[in-house]
Amino acid sequence: MDKVALKKWAIVLALGAIIWLIPVPAGLTPAAWHLFAVFVATIAGFILQPIPMGAVAFLALTICAFFGILKTKDVLMGFGSGTIWLIVCAFFLSRGFIKTGLGRRIAYCIIRAIGKSSMSLGYSICLAELIVSPAMPSATARGGGVFYPIVQSLCNAFDSTPGASAGRIGKYLMQVGFHADAVTCTMFLTSMAGNPLCVGLAASAAGVELTWMEWAAAAIVPGLVCLFLVPIILLKIAPPELKQMPDAKSVAVAELAKMGPMSKDEKVLAFVFVMCLILWATGSLTKIGATPIAMLAVSIMLISKVLVWKDILSEKGAWDAMFWMGGLMSLATALAKSGFIKWAAAGIASGISAAHMSWFVSFAVIALIYIYSHYCFASVTARISAMYAAFVAVAVACGAPALMVAVAFGIFANLPISLTHYGNGAAPVYFGAGYVSQGEWWRNGFVITTINTIVWFTVGFAWWKVIGLF
Amino acid sequence: MDKVALKKWAIVLALGAIIWLIPVPAGLTPAAWHLFAVFVATIAGFILQPIPMGAVAFLALTICAFFGILKTKDVLMGFGSGTIWLIVCAFFLSRGFIKTGLGRRIAYCIIRAIGKSSMSLGYSICLAELIVSPAMPSATARGGGVFYPIVQSLCNAFDSTPGASAGRIGKYLMQVGFHADAVTCTMFLTSMAGNPLCVGLAASAAGVELTWMEWAAAAIVPGLVCLFLVPIILLKIAPPELKQMPDAKSVAVAELAKMGPMSKDEKVLAFVFVMCLILWATGSLTKIGATPIAMLAVSIMLISKVLVWKDILSEKGAWDAMFWMGGLMSLATALAKSGFIKWAAAGIASGISAAHMSWFVSFAVIALIYIYSHYCFASVTARISAMYAAFVAVAVACGAPALMVAVAFGIFANLPISLTHYGNGAAPVYFGAGYVSQGEWWRNGFVITTINTIVWFTVGFAWWKVIGLF
Repeated sequence: MDKVALKKWAIVLALGAIIWLIPVPAGLTPAAWHLFAVFVATIAGFILQPIPMGAVAFLALTICAFFGILKTKDVLMGFGSGTIWLIVCAFFLSRGFIKTGLGRRIAYCIIRAIGKSSMSLGYSICLAELIVSPAMPSATARGGGVFYPIVQSLCNAFDSTPGASAGRIGKYLMQVGFHADAVTCTMFLTSMAGNPLCVGLAASAAGVELTWMEWAAAAIVPGLVCLFLVPIILLKIAPPELKQMPDAKSVAVAELAKMGPMSKDEKVLAFVFVMCLILWATGSLTKIGATPIAMLAVSIMLISKVLVWKDILSEKGAWDAMFWMGGLMSLATALAKSGFIKWAAAGIASGISAAHMSWFVSFAVIALIYIYSHYCFASVTARISAMYAAFVAVAVACGAPALMVAVAFGIFANLPISLTHYGNGAAPVYFGAGYVSQGEWWRNGFVITTINTIVWFTVGFAWWKVIGLF
Repeated sequence: MDKVALKKWAIVLALGAIIWLIPVPAGLTPAAWHLFAVFVATIAGFILQPIPMGAVAFLALTICAFFGILKTKDVLMGFGSGTIWLIVCAFFLSRGFIKTGLGRRIAYCIIRAIGKSSMSLGYSICLAELIVSPAMPSATARGGGVFYPIVQSLCNAFDSTPGASAGRIGKYLMQVGFHADAVTCTMFLTSMAGNPLCVGLAASAAGVELTWMEWAAAAIVPGLVCLFLVPIILLKIAPPELKQMPDAKSVAVAELAKMGPMSKDEKVLAFVFVMCLILWATGSLTKIGATPIAMLAVSIMLISKVLVWKDILSEKGAWDAMFWMGGLMSLATALAKSGFIKWAAAGIASGISAAHMSWFVSFAVIALIYIYSHYCFASVTARISAMYAAFVAVAVACGAPALMVAVAFGIFANLPISLTHYGNGAAPVYFGAGYVSQGEWWRNGFVITTINTIVWFTVGFAWWKVIGLF
């Protein structure tokens, strides 16, 4: 083992060991505390990667299972999770787009229509996300299943693949796609599957009734500002080499002519894709989950031989995401179940109410902790379940207006999706494409999250004053 | 799609549709009946394979999830199952044996010691299984984790790989390995993880106390006969091309000399392997499950770079087994949970007690149904949970001696593991090696199971008379 790897191992293991050895705080079980130690070491391992991320996750699960911190079934829970299989299916769907050439075709059609610059492509992704999002509550399906295959095809169309050519346009578009998905999640009660959870929790924690219109009215102006900023900010912090593309349209026309008419496989996939869009959009009526719909798409591709079985088994990206995201999901779910999050939330809450600040300052402090704590979560829904009620209650107790708090903490649950490559289910798909290194992803995620936070605290508050939310 | 595939699809779908459309029998929920229809169609799909087995399983899961027959989490349950991940880890362990050369070395050592004929190798596997089995309750760990890597290395040492050279010795040894694992499961209370379940169930269903010694005493003679027959029967029904191997020993000596001393990676793996053996054998004392132990083995291999992450992601056999065995496990578990098995067992029981046969005939009929129903199960433990108590109670009610019934139905739970390639957790590993076609596997499995049944009904009964079990 080389020196660099040894150093990384030392940091990761030392971090875990130190936390493990600190006496268990009152109010926590030893298992919860030890789980937290493993969790922190795992995140450190994800950042430093002495071995690849999937292996780090597997090792963390092994430690939990072997030392009895968790039951084997809780350790393996992530691998049987609906979110994970939605992610896995998104990889298969994307493989279909590449294999059949449908992705190429759609990409060239988009370029023919609006292929003036990287930024214009970025804005078209944002606009399309905005249109689709209120009707598609699964952000994983929307980002990973609908937009990711198209974004990837666009990158390929400009000969930008992971590696040396990633910087041409791929890095830029992948991040635009991801952060657009994150921003649209904040904008509607129905643009993220866990948002409706807030309705029930707001009623019990703050005694307010949260409606679709209230959420949308509160979010529309600051949300649009954030969405508008995404392609511009990324143009600064992740500039594509390809900025203007004067020849792109004529190239696209020529390539489309060369491709000729759609093949049978392309037609089947186009049908599957439209079917998914419709089924995902009508899911709240039909009560069919996003994962079964994605499974249906994969099944149709298999029956019609658009994909053969070997394509599925060879889809390494899917297995990699299953390991690291599934492993992290097991740990994060167990951490919430263990009572650790509730204990931490209660500690923060009592600290804040003891400080006797003005309601606005209290609210801001609570909100910032709430937002940046998303480094510890692999699912927004899980975070809402674990933290929303407690944080809303404290903010209201500090004197903040109940309805505003209820809406704000719904929005702020989604805002920091941008932080990490595991912030929601679409993240591992975009990240898994391999264009963006983890360092860049986290750095840019922090910048975008922070700018968005500032937007919500300035434009957002001004807007909320205008509409009379406080 | 070609005509043959269409025909296969037609049979599979027609079977499922006919059962689905039969009016739901009284005492069953529609969901349970529809699940049974999907289950039967899935098994038919496994046999005919209009698309590969993994795809069949995935399609079945999709239907269950999409039409609301099962909840998404129950559909995906198999992918987070401890047994499935033990199987997956067995594939990784085996990859380590191949990659490091340790498997080759062990194989040549075995050949140098006893490499006279295929049959002598077969008997050495049986003997080793017999010695290890009472101390290793996880038959999946024993078969898939301990013996499979060695058996595969033996096959490779004789240049027998899946495909044209499978018949040299691979087909033979793989089946010997699997059926030896199945037979040893019948022999001890501690040779299969689910066997101790029988103790509790026997007490409540038949009022008898089942001890380790009683089980071993009842099983030792007929069990040894079955184990003795395995290599001989397979010599007839799956004859290896390579029968005598007069040069094998000298070749082995030369190859071992060529290999030189053990590499660092081989030493690490040897340590991991011995560690697994010890931990699996002491699992009932340490209360560490078989799956966490296998995960530890994989983790050590990853940390020490015996395996790199790409080896894990590229292990298609593991993903294939995860799909089809995991899918089947979801379905079988749900079928048992749905009440279908209990309903079927009760129907059989009332039919038999209504027939007023002698206790021996009743016992024989019940036992045969119990044995051959294993076509419907992917886990012996699941079958014991679902059927043992009901069948024991009926047999005792028909006048069969309680203690004998309690022991016999424990043994007969394991006997038909041999039937299918999903009969227990070791089956998908041996089958997944790819030496034996599914047709051969099922045909030979039926022959072995039937001969073993005859042995238990003749030698077994005679022996039980001798030791005073009835």
